[in-house]
Amino acid sequence: MNYLDALTWRYATKRMNGEAVPEEKLANILEAVRLAPSSMGLQPYNVIVVKDSTTREKLVPAINQPQVTEGSALLIFAAWTKVNQQQIDDYIRNIADTRGLPPAALAGFKTNIENLVKSKDNQSLFSWTARQAYIGLGYATAAAAFEQVDATPMEGFSPEKLNALLDLEAKGLSAVAIVTLGYRNSETDQLAKAPKVRRPAEQFFHYHNN
Amino acid sequence: MNYLDALTWRYATKRMNGEAVPEEKLANILEAVRLAPSSMGLQPYNVIVVKDSTTREKLVPAINQPQVTEGSALLIFAAWTKVNQQQIDDYIRNIADTRGLPPAALAGFKTNIENLVKSKDNQSLFSWTARQAYIGLGYATAAAAFEQVDATPMEGFSPEKLNALLDLEAKGLSAVAIVTLGYRNSETDQLAKAPKVRRPAEQFFHYHNN
Repeated sequence: MNYLDALTWRYATKRMNGEAVPEEKLANILEAVRLAPSSMGLQPYNVIVVKDSTTREKLVPAINQPQVTEGSALLIFAAWTKVNQQQIDDYIRNIADTRGLPPAALAGFKTNIENLVKSKDNQSLFSWTARQAYIGLGYATAAAAFEQVDATPMEGFSPEKLNALLDLEAKGLSAVAIVTLGYRNSETDQLAKAPKVRRPAEQFFHYHNN
Repeated sequence: MNYLDALTWRYATKRMNGEAVPEEKLANILEAVRLAPSSMGLQPYNVIVVKDSTTREKLVPAINQPQVTEGSALLIFAAWTKVNQQQIDDYIRNIADTRGLPPAALAGFKTNIENLVKSKDNQSLFSWTARQAYIGLGYATAAAAFEQVDATPMEGFSPEKLNALLDLEAKGLSAVAIVTLGYRNSETDQLAKAPKVRRPAEQFFHYHNN
């Protein structure tokens, strides 16, 4: 199946059948998310991976959609609520180590990141980190399709409750979106066979071609 | 090349060589963006596709990065600044037409969208539409990798200037991010051969496994 066929095959699965996603497929999907691009390469979010069914049950009051328990793993995209100096320093050290560079060679880039972060108030900073998390969310749904695993991106949950249940605030995180992974239940999911609906290309794209 | 290898191959290309991206590859990348998921399926953004070199030159004062002219196409992700009733009605009609449903069958879903939109002030609405655009941006960068086309996601531009140059405000749009498509210039781009830097999995992911 080529990648466009896989992206057409995927849909936001409403009901799943409880079948477990194999470890290797889950690992590949996570690796795709880790490879996703982000502004300045900072990756200012974390992904909470919940396979344990007891924890998933515990999260139902915050999410309250059947895929939480009918799927086999939840990926909770939690954006950084702040960017602290340690996080910037760790990133710069990671670049230096990975590329065999002296940290001094990265001083200008480091200052750029620091200035970008300083230029943002709390709200615009979180808006920025959340957007980066959504790139990762996109990668998760695409990678799942390539693995022929169903994936449901979700915003309809209580971030407050979810943050509290997973103690995210103390970690400088706030949940912005979830992807549930599992397998469609074609009998109970009335959307399993519904044609995909997308805006026509001529409305979605504006072309400057000549 | 499997999809993880392609995602590893890609990087935010700083310098491009002027070579044109074939029409078929560009069309495939755009189709991937159109297939990207979005909240409620609304796709509350547009993608401005700029191939014309005169228009790209005209945008340099707003973007001011060499890929604008060294690449062969710009995808400008422009999020809806508001969601009006016509846009909701068009979406509901599209679902009804695509799936052969009477619009009445979609009344509840339509009300859900209307209520979601009404619940948001201007700022949180734009925050929401922008996030959806970033899923599309993710799909663009991934699809480009599968087509072995280089892609640079960019935030470092002036949305005010770009909106003015493309008259986006009057269309209810505001630019949130750009993807430049083209081919890397391995001689001038010092990052062309640099190892990819990503946060280690054990820091990026938090696992609940047991």
